[in-house]
Amino acid sequence: MKAQSELPAARDKLLFTPGPLTTSLSVKQAMLHDAGSWHHEVNAKVRWVRDRLLEIAGLSSGAGWETVLLQGSGTFCVEAVFATCVPPKGKVAVLANGAYGQRMVLMLQHLRIDHVVLQTPEDTPVDPAVLDLALAKDKTITHVAVVHCETTTGILNPIVEVGRVVQRHGRLYVVDAMSSFGAISIDFAAAGIDFLISSANKCIEGVPGFSFVICRLETLLACDGYARSLSLNLLDQFKGFEKNGQFRYTPPTHSILAFEQALQEFDQEGGVAGRGARYEANHQALAKGMKQLGFRPYLDPAVQSYIITAFCYPESEKFSFGAFYRGLSERGFIIYPGKISQANTFRIGSIGRIFPSDIAALLSAIRAVLCEMGLG
Amino acid sequence: MKAQSELPAARDKLLFTPGPLTTSLSVKQAMLHDAGSWHHEVNAKVRWVRDRLLEIAGLSSGAGWETVLLQGSGTFCVEAVFATCVPPKGKVAVLANGAYGQRMVLMLQHLRIDHVVLQTPEDTPVDPAVLDLALAKDKTITHVAVVHCETTTGILNPIVEVGRVVQRHGRLYVVDAMSSFGAISIDFAAAGIDFLISSANKCIEGVPGFSFVICRLETLLACDGYARSLSLNLLDQFKGFEKNGQFRYTPPTHSILAFEQALQEFDQEGGVAGRGARYEANHQALAKGMKQLGFRPYLDPAVQSYIITAFCYPESEKFSFGAFYRGLSERGFIIYPGKISQANTFRIGSIGRIFPSDIAALLSAIRAVLCEMGLG
Repeated sequence: MKAQSELPAARDKLLFTPGPLTTSLSVKQAMLHDAGSWHHEVNAKVRWVRDRLLEIAGLSSGAGWETVLLQGSGTFCVEAVFATCVPPKGKVAVLANGAYGQRMVLMLQHLRIDHVVLQTPEDTPVDPAVLDLALAKDKTITHVAVVHCETTTGILNPIVEVGRVVQRHGRLYVVDAMSSFGAISIDFAAAGIDFLISSANKCIEGVPGFSFVICRLETLLACDGYARSLSLNLLDQFKGFEKNGQFRYTPPTHSILAFEQALQEFDQEGGVAGRGARYEANHQALAKGMKQLGFRPYLDPAVQSYIITAFCYPESEKFSFGAFYRGLSERGFIIYPGKISQANTFRIGSIGRIFPSDIAALLSAIRAVLCEMGLG
Repeated sequence: MKAQSELPAARDKLLFTPGPLTTSLSVKQAMLHDAGSWHHEVNAKVRWVRDRLLEIAGLSSGAGWETVLLQGSGTFCVEAVFATCVPPKGKVAVLANGAYGQRMVLMLQHLRIDHVVLQTPEDTPVDPAVLDLALAKDKTITHVAVVHCETTTGILNPIVEVGRVVQRHGRLYVVDAMSSFGAISIDFAAAGIDFLISSANKCIEGVPGFSFVICRLETLLACDGYARSLSLNLLDQFKGFEKNGQFRYTPPTHSILAFEQALQEFDQEGGVAGRGARYEANHQALAKGMKQLGFRPYLDPAVQSYIITAFCYPESEKFSFGAFYRGLSERGFIIYPGKISQANTFRIGSIGRIFPSDIAALLSAIRAVLCEMGLG
């Protein structure tokens, strides 16, 4: 008999990760076509995608907002905002409590942009009061940047409270909503967001290939001449869309076809409310089941999002993350390693085309693997 | 009866463009899977892809070469080479005779990297003798950059002759082989190439999503600290692959699955020689048929590649490119507009999963559209 690993499987392993995620078969089937990047049919899809993303955000181009799509992962788009929109003498205050906040700092270092880091521990939301003091003291800070759901831990940062401080001080506000946009309602007006970034392969459940920024047109247009990179020049990218409906450079055509389908399925599910409800049900089932299995969540439930959850390793020498991961993988479930500097954790995502029944199957597999490890 | 445009078509339109290209159905079907970016199965595919690209180039990691994959279009990867590898006081000489050479200049402007442009007309190959003089005169030039096949016109630049000059002067050599790699044999040793860039959706016939650079490891490692962008930091990207086999940031997993299949089909066709032969047959059929239809190629055949061909508009007021394009599109063929500043041209690509029989069908359609326009 051939070993299981030598034969093609009947199904893909389910991804309980922060992305790329498990997507519907119909989203993937939308990629079974080749489309010309210069063709009006593709341009019409790009236009539709840009408008639909604004609608999901509760915004419109008539009200002065635009969506700019950019090739590459979400990180490229966050960096593109800094590279395009911070003036030569600008300074960015980064509110950080995880790896994605720290990544913003790395971007600013690479771009040689002045910055200050307002750090809180990884289990603690960022602090609007600390920002208030910093902005009062340092008038040279032009931009404030924060991660909405910090997928390092799954913590949810208070973007409206932070935004109120930013607005009171008259600075510009950049929100990385990579893993939250589409699943958690975001009030752009209350938060006073100027730039919000997310990606095709997160809660809209498309495939990787591009990310996007939703921004105030006036604010973007005011950035003329600042761009520190051609590829990451969001203003030029916007002008390209306006000029002829096209990406300036080769677009990820198949990802766009998949995203069009993903947006239709997003609507079928009832938009942000419907999708958020499923993810929340996934998370509740996960949190309850993991507790029953003896796992301790890293975060206080009060600050925990329903996007991704970090769990502490069991306090036993019998536990090895490598063996745990492999055992789950062999059963068809892919979880995610931890990314926290101060604690040994692993992570389980609640997002993508997975349902509470999949969470139940995952929990059964975890129980079986724990038994194998002598931890049952 | 419903209009044809209101009903889904049986087949995709064939793309006679510089990319994204028509790909095989099996390449697209490889994307019907979701793969975890952290999973060892994906990492093994990434490793295999990187090694296979070196083999196609006639190189190996044992001999000091590496492939670095980067999310985004080919432009991102060309800019990443400059952003990562030119020292703060470096200076780049760009040999330019088309839009892609000019795009390199735009990158260097954005990156605030000193540069000089050695321009030749769009119908004339770049000139090694001019470079020789420039390098002799200006010792501050550290890098020389050129586009191999300038898809603005389809002209083929003499990368070996240019490279010999670069080597004699001891500078570093960057070759944009976006639309030639995999279809035209490239002698890395003779040309003395340090960095060569190409993309997944060109002559290997994958789908868009990432591009790649093939480079000398030693040269890449010497660039520590130069990077002007985090996302475009090729050295960090390389270190990421070496550390854990992974892209630093979300990879275009579906594009990678498609590319793995595309590489297998590339081998089936007989590698560079086999693929090049088909593209050359496509080009010959195109050139002959278009001549019979009365079209004049923009370039002298002596400098024309078999990748893409620019044709001059017919000298008749009856001709309109818009109507010509639409007529062909309605018949299932997508051609490409011109990009030349000094002449009215359109372009027809010979690359992608198209065969001489497809060229024959395109030529028949062109004949029919010309008749409709009163030009038959």
